[in-house]
Amino acid sequence: MRRFFRYPVRLVPFGFLVAILLGTGLLMLPQASVEYEYTPFTTALFTATSAVSVTGMSVVDTHTYWNTFGLVLITVLTQVGGLGILTGAALVILLVARQLGLRNRLLVQAETTEYGIGNVRGLLLRIAVIALVCEAAITLVFAGRLWLGYDYPPGRALWYGLFHAVQAFNNGGFSLYPDSLLRFARDAWICLPVAAGTIIGGLGFPAIFDAARTWRRPSRWGVATKLTVWGSLALLVVGFAGLLAAEWANLRTVGSYGWSGKVLAVATQSASLRTGGFQFIDMAELDEESYPLLIALMFIGGGSASTAGGIKVGTFFLLASVIWAQVRGEPDVTVGSRRIAGTSQRQALTVALLSVALVVAGTTVLIGLAEDVRDYRVLFEVVSAFSTTGVTAGLAAHLDDAGQFVLIALMYVGRVGPLTLGSAIALNTRRRLYRYPEEQPIVS
Amino acid sequence: MRRFFRYPVRLVPFGFLVAILLGTGLLMLPQASVEYEYTPFTTALFTATSAVSVTGMSVVDTHTYWNTFGLVLITVLTQVGGLGILTGAALVILLVARQLGLRNRLLVQAETTEYGIGNVRGLLLRIAVIALVCEAAITLVFAGRLWLGYDYPPGRALWYGLFHAVQAFNNGGFSLYPDSLLRFARDAWICLPVAAGTIIGGLGFPAIFDAARTWRRPSRWGVATKLTVWGSLALLVVGFAGLLAAEWANLRTVGSYGWSGKVLAVATQSASLRTGGFQFIDMAELDEESYPLLIALMFIGGGSASTAGGIKVGTFFLLASVIWAQVRGEPDVTVGSRRIAGTSQRQALTVALLSVALVVAGTTVLIGLAEDVRDYRVLFEVVSAFSTTGVTAGLAAHLDDAGQFVLIALMYVGRVGPLTLGSAIALNTRRRLYRYPEEQPIVS
Ligand SMILES: [K+]
Ligand SMILES: [K+]
Repeated sequence: MRRFFRYPVRLVPFGFLVAILLGTGLLMLPQASVEYEYTPFTTALFTATSAVSVTGMSVVDTHTYWNTFGLVLITVLTQVGGLGILTGAALVILLVARQLGLRNRLLVQAETTEYGIGNVRGLLLRIAVIALVCEAAITLVFAGRLWLGYDYPPGRALWYGLFHAVQAFNNGGFSLYPDSLLRFARDAWICLPVAAGTIIGGLGFPAIFDAARTWRRPSRWGVATKLTVWGSLALLVVGFAGLLAAEWANLRTVGSYGWSGKVLAVATQSASLRTGGFQFIDMAELDEESYPLLIALMFIGGGSASTAGGIKVGTFFLLASVIWAQVRGEPDVTVGSRRIAGTSQRQALTVALLSVALVVAGTTVLIGLAEDVRDYRVLFEVVSAFSTTGVTAGLAAHLDDAGQFVLIALMYVGRVGPLTLGSAIALNTRRRLYRYPEEQPIVS
Repeated sequence: MRRFFRYPVRLVPFGFLVAILLGTGLLMLPQASVEYEYTPFTTALFTATSAVSVTGMSVVDTHTYWNTFGLVLITVLTQVGGLGILTGAALVILLVARQLGLRNRLLVQAETTEYGIGNVRGLLLRIAVIALVCEAAITLVFAGRLWLGYDYPPGRALWYGLFHAVQAFNNGGFSLYPDSLLRFARDAWICLPVAAGTIIGGLGFPAIFDAARTWRRPSRWGVATKLTVWGSLALLVVGFAGLLAAEWANLRTVGSYGWSGKVLAVATQSASLRTGGFQFIDMAELDEESYPLLIALMFIGGGSASTAGGIKVGTFFLLASVIWAQVRGEPDVTVGSRRIAGTSQRQALTVALLSVALVVAGTTVLIGLAEDVRDYRVLFEVVSAFSTTGVTAGLAAHLDDAGQFVLIALMYVGRVGPLTLGSAIALNTRRRLYRYPEEQPIVS
């Protein structure tokens, strides 16, 4: 066991697993459900995984199934999943890193280079402050609106505000309403803070800190920050424009709204698809042309080391840069006057292709298990789970246990990251002291 | 114009384009159709593109629409597409390569390293001999079987044998029967030569020559040959086993056959899916579980510099090696005691991701154009066109002109190769005399 954990890359998947199993045990207790009965293992496991992985997909109606204790549990698990384990694991790795040889240090470079070794306490503090300030702000606006605009009693308004604020900032996606946040799709007081929280939480701390440090001079940002910030902006615009065009006349979604309602609902939904998970548009009623766009947005996801999932914006645009360089016949891959190291390229490639493979595998298995569903909704649901987005086209709740286990596995792997999980399992712990001669095979 | 063609990577897409346009013009003539009328431009363009790109998809019934002159044209275009342009362009590039600087030489290394500079005439001869011997052998067996087993008159048997032999070896996929080769699914005399021709033509000359040169010592094969030969074998086995399991009890395909009929039909079909294109099983009646497997097999395709399409077997397994190395935390990517150069990795990555992007884009557009088709058949058809496989789930013939143009574009890009086409358009013809400092962004 000690030998196993000598490699810090193995701590992350293990930490998530422990949190999920603890959450499952607690959610199974009668004290957590409205009916005061033991919750079946699969339901509890699904809910705990969905919360810890900040997916927000559910197989029961959140508000009518779980009582206050259950909902608090979900809130805590979401907060732990979105912030705690992520930063916790990063910090553990950071601390352990100093005792490691060069090769292992390469594996943990992710955290060390971004956070800066030696400032652990300051880092923790800054992360906590950002999270608390954002969540408090969203809570206040959300609760105030429910209180003043919808006549909720103050206590209930506050609880609803807090619950959805935590979900929004952590890109969680659980909702106390059976229709997610659909009923607020044209209410800017709800839409805007939720969208803002989703975007900030989904940018990731490395990008936020780096951008904040030199916000007057974007040209001085690191490559990862540039890719993440400008890439996120581009994806928001593309998602907004594409979804607006596809759904403009769809009467089952936003077709009946006025133009400002259309703009608000579509803008909020496109922010929430990367990978917040609240629904402001009914995903089961989308125009079929919207599916490929939404699937792509979910698959790309948010920023690195953020509360969002997917292959990450930086990965996507780094790969785009590699392709562009190759097509142009350039010897180097450059982003904003910086040459991208081969190891970063390989890492991005691995993450993207492993993700494609997992989505294909998950879709294949689920098609077999859900024989009556014959369109792109299976793929949609699989990408939603894997990218920890959590929007649903109505499939999750109708799956049997086997189907639910597939989604559980996808949420877990999606949150931990396929490369991290793969490394944890297959890491070569012996060092090779020689190199083979190089060859340049032509394979395309 | 001369300036444009100073970069030989631009010759390949141009050559295919010329052949397609010539073919379109000839096929439009009344002399080519049974009805002796002018063929509409879109139909002729689709057929010419389908033949030159060795896809074999068709929008009219090949045998009842085209007369003998038309069918001979299709045969010639297939032969030109499968062999002529491919080797022709390779040779032109080979010849031009000597006059080029280092950077352009990198772009054409594909051909030069594999074929060996300086042996152009010998190379041409060997390619021609292999093609002719294979096609003659298939013709003889096919024609003999039709003559002796199905009572065809000798001349007709020979013509049918020749037509399908050319299609088989070139991975073309056009057939003189309205049901492709479905009626012969349990006839080993037809299945086996067609499957053998498809596999040999789809391995590619580099792999065939390299493997033949040192066939006693597979350990001495080049990396590309190892990846291609062993990878093709693995894919054949996986395709056979997966398809057999999925379709075993499907009465609309092979469920009613005896076990030997099932084995023969499924084995031949799985060989033909990478990317021969004859149908021995009705693709419109497949069990839905089969689609992901078939889509994956088509997408991967055959060997490099072969008559098959797809991203290529070598690309796929090279990327698998990159992923494996990254997951294991290895500093180098190795295949059989050879380190893989970064430039090869980048090339494979670019081909794979550009292909994914094109398939996604094509599917998105076609979903919009074929509003009534709501399952995976659109994706199936798009991958079939892009990988120049040409099997159809029944969509192609029902598309309007716009939809047909999408498939035409996919077949063309699929045959030329997205990296080659992209480079031809976007090649940076100015040299950069400086390098930027390196950075190692962490993006996943
Ligand atoms: K989510
Ligand atoms: K074909």
